[in-house]
Amino acid sequence: MTDRQSRYFVPGPTWVRPEILAEMTRPMMGHRSAEFREVFRRVKGDLKSLFRTTQDAFVSTSSGTGVLEGALLNVVPRRVLVTTCGAFSERWKTIAEQTGVEVDHLDHPWGEAIDPERLATHFAGRRHHYDAVTITHNETSTGVMNDLRALVEVIHAETSDTLILVDAVSSLGSAPILFDEWGIDVCIASTQKGLALPPGLAVFAVSERALAAAKKKPYRGTYFDFLEYKRQGDNDGAPFTPSIPHYFALEKQLDHILREETLDERWERHRKMRDMTLERTAGYAELMSDRTHASVSVSALRPTKRDAQTILSEMRARGFVLGGGYGRWKEESFRIGHMGDISLVALSAMLDVLEEAAQ
Amino acid sequence: MTDRQSRYFVPGPTWVRPEILAEMTRPMMGHRSAEFREVFRRVKGDLKSLFRTTQDAFVSTSSGTGVLEGALLNVVPRRVLVTTCGAFSERWKTIAEQTGVEVDHLDHPWGEAIDPERLATHFAGRRHHYDAVTITHNETSTGVMNDLRALVEVIHAETSDTLILVDAVSSLGSAPILFDEWGIDVCIASTQKGLALPPGLAVFAVSERALAAAKKKPYRGTYFDFLEYKRQGDNDGAPFTPSIPHYFALEKQLDHILREETLDERWERHRKMRDMTLERTAGYAELMSDRTHASVSVSALRPTKRDAQTILSEMRARGFVLGGGYGRWKEESFRIGHMGDISLVALSAMLDVLEEAAQ
Repeated sequence: MTDRQSRYFVPGPTWVRPEILAEMTRPMMGHRSAEFREVFRRVKGDLKSLFRTTQDAFVSTSSGTGVLEGALLNVVPRRVLVTTCGAFSERWKTIAEQTGVEVDHLDHPWGEAIDPERLATHFAGRRHHYDAVTITHNETSTGVMNDLRALVEVIHAETSDTLILVDAVSSLGSAPILFDEWGIDVCIASTQKGLALPPGLAVFAVSERALAAAKKKPYRGTYFDFLEYKRQGDNDGAPFTPSIPHYFALEKQLDHILREETLDERWERHRKMRDMTLERTAGYAELMSDRTHASVSVSALRPTKRDAQTILSEMRARGFVLGGGYGRWKEESFRIGHMGDISLVALSAMLDVLEEAAQ
Repeated sequence: MTDRQSRYFVPGPTWVRPEILAEMTRPMMGHRSAEFREVFRRVKGDLKSLFRTTQDAFVSTSSGTGVLEGALLNVVPRRVLVTTCGAFSERWKTIAEQTGVEVDHLDHPWGEAIDPERLATHFAGRRHHYDAVTITHNETSTGVMNDLRALVEVIHAETSDTLILVDAVSSLGSAPILFDEWGIDVCIASTQKGLALPPGLAVFAVSERALAAAKKKPYRGTYFDFLEYKRQGDNDGAPFTPSIPHYFALEKQLDHILREETLDERWERHRKMRDMTLERTAGYAELMSDRTHASVSVSALRPTKRDAQTILSEMRARGFVLGGGYGRWKEESFRIGHMGDISLVALSAMLDVLEEAAQ
C-alpha cells in the first residue's frame, strides 16, 4: 500500500496524509510551556473558524463518545429527547440512560432521515420540558445525512430553552455546519473522519447558553467538565495533559482546511465524491438509505450481483479496504467511506476496480 | 536541539525517542480490523507483564486524570479515604468530591511521604467503612516516592474489603509495582512519564475484586466504564475509537522495556539517575523533600547560590529545559525530571552544564 494516495475507504478512521502523520513526530514540549500555548492559541482560533462560531471551541483527548457523555453531564439535569435513525444516533440513548436522566426518543427506521415535521409534531405535543435534544448529523451506520439546519430550525420554532446537542462526529469538515448562524449549543466531532487526522482527539463547540446551563448543574464530572475547559481555554491551556502529537497534526490540518483547500471547496469535493459514488455504483448496487439524504461522507450499498462479503474480500485482494455493513446491515451491505482528504482521483481509481470486483 | 539525546528534563511529558515517535506515522487501520486486534492483543499481554499481573490491564485514550475519575466512579459508591502529601495526591480529593461521595482525607505536609504508621492508626480508629483508599505512588509536585508496598500492606492488615486505588502516573516503568503480589485493585499511569511515550494515553490494571465492585455499582458513566473495557478487551478490542498512533508507539515501547532493557534494568537505571542527581547537585541545591523517600523519577530542588528562576532561564539559554517548581513551591525551587528513556550519559551531561549555571 502506498501512503501517497488512499486505497483505504472506510467510514473512519480515514486515510491520513503522510505530511500530517509526520507532524506527530515533532519533539515533545511541556503542555504548560509558552511554546505549547502558542500552538493551543492557533488551534483554538482555527477551530472557531471551522465551526463558524465566535463562541467557544475546545479539544478533548478522547474519542467523540466521551464528549457526547460530557455534553449530557454538563447540560441535562432532568430530561433529554434523543432523535434516532441508526446505530450511532441510538448511542445517545444508551449514554443518556447511564447518566440517570429521563430519556424520551423519537425513532425513525434505519435508512430514513429524521423528519423535521415529525420532530415539530413531537415538540408541539410534548408533555414535558426537555433540557436538550440530540441530533446525529451524519448517521455513519446507514449513510444518511440529516438536514441539520431544518431540524435545528424546528426546535428553535417550538421552544426557546431546549439546548441542541449535535453529534457531528462524521460530518464536521465534510459538510456545512454553521454553529452560530443556525443556533447550535454543543457540536462534537472526532478527528479521524472529516478532519482526516488519526483518531485520539475530539473537538467541540459550546454556546454561551450551554455554559450557563453547565454552571447550574452541580455534577458535571471532572474529565469532561466544560467549565474547566472554558476556564483553562481562556488562558490558552488544556485542563488535562493533552495528546501533544495530535495538537501538532491538528494545527497543520486546520491551516490546510481553512487556507489551502478552504471550507467551501472541501464541502464541494465531498458532494462530488458522494455523487460520483452513487453514479458509478448504480449498475451493481442499491443505496440502502433515503436517496435525498445520501451522506456526502459515507455510502451504504446493497450489491445486486455478488454478495457483499465476497466484494469486500475481492477488493482486499486488490489492495483496497472498504467498510463493512454496520450492525443489523452487516451481511447484506458494504460501506464506502469518502471523507476527509480522499481525492476525487483516488476515489475514481477505486471505483474502477470496484466495478470489476462487484459483478 | 538534537532529537537523538534528551536535553529535556521536565517531570513529563518526558523526552520521546525518535524511533518511538516514528511509530506514530504508520498508516491508519480500522480499530475493528483483524490487524488492529493483533496490535491490541500484543499490547494487552505486555501491559500485564509491565504491571506484573495476571488479572486485567487496559488502555484509555485520555490523560491519567480521566481514569482516576473512572476508578472512583466504578468502585466507590459511598466513601473513600484519600491520602495526600502534595498537589497530585490532593487531586484525588477534588475528583472524588465531584462524584458526590463522602471523602475522608489523611493529609501530610508537602515534602513528606505518607506515613504507614499514621495510616494504620487512622484505619484502626476509623468510624466508617471505606469503599476504597487512594495512594499516589510518586508525588510529582514534591519529588516524593511513597513506599507503596508498605502502605498497601498496612491497608491489607487493617481491612479485607477496602479497595486500593493507586495513581502511578509518574512511577510506572520507573519503579517496581507488583500489582498482584502486593494486592492492588486499580493502578493507573499515563504514558508520557516513565513509559516515555507522548501524552494522549493512559494505561491501567484492574483486579477481579474491583471488577466485582463495579458490577454492583449502577452508575459508572460511559467513557470510563471498566466493565465495558473488560467486555471488549476480552475480545481484543477497545470500547471506543482509540488513538491508533499511540497504540503503535506503545506496542514498540513495551517490547523495548520488557525485552530489550528489561524492567529490572530500567528500575536500576532510574535509581542511579536519582542518586546521580542528588550527589551532583548537593553543592548548590537542597532537596525540598524527605531524602529517604526521594523519587527515582523527579527531584525538587531549592538552589542555595542563585535563584531558581535565573537557573531555569540560564539553562534554557544553554539549550536545556528543566521543570519549574510546582504550585506553592514555584518560586523557590526547580525540578529535574529523570524518567523514561533518559540515559545516565545524557543526565550527566546536563548536570555538567547545570553546575555552571547554578553557581
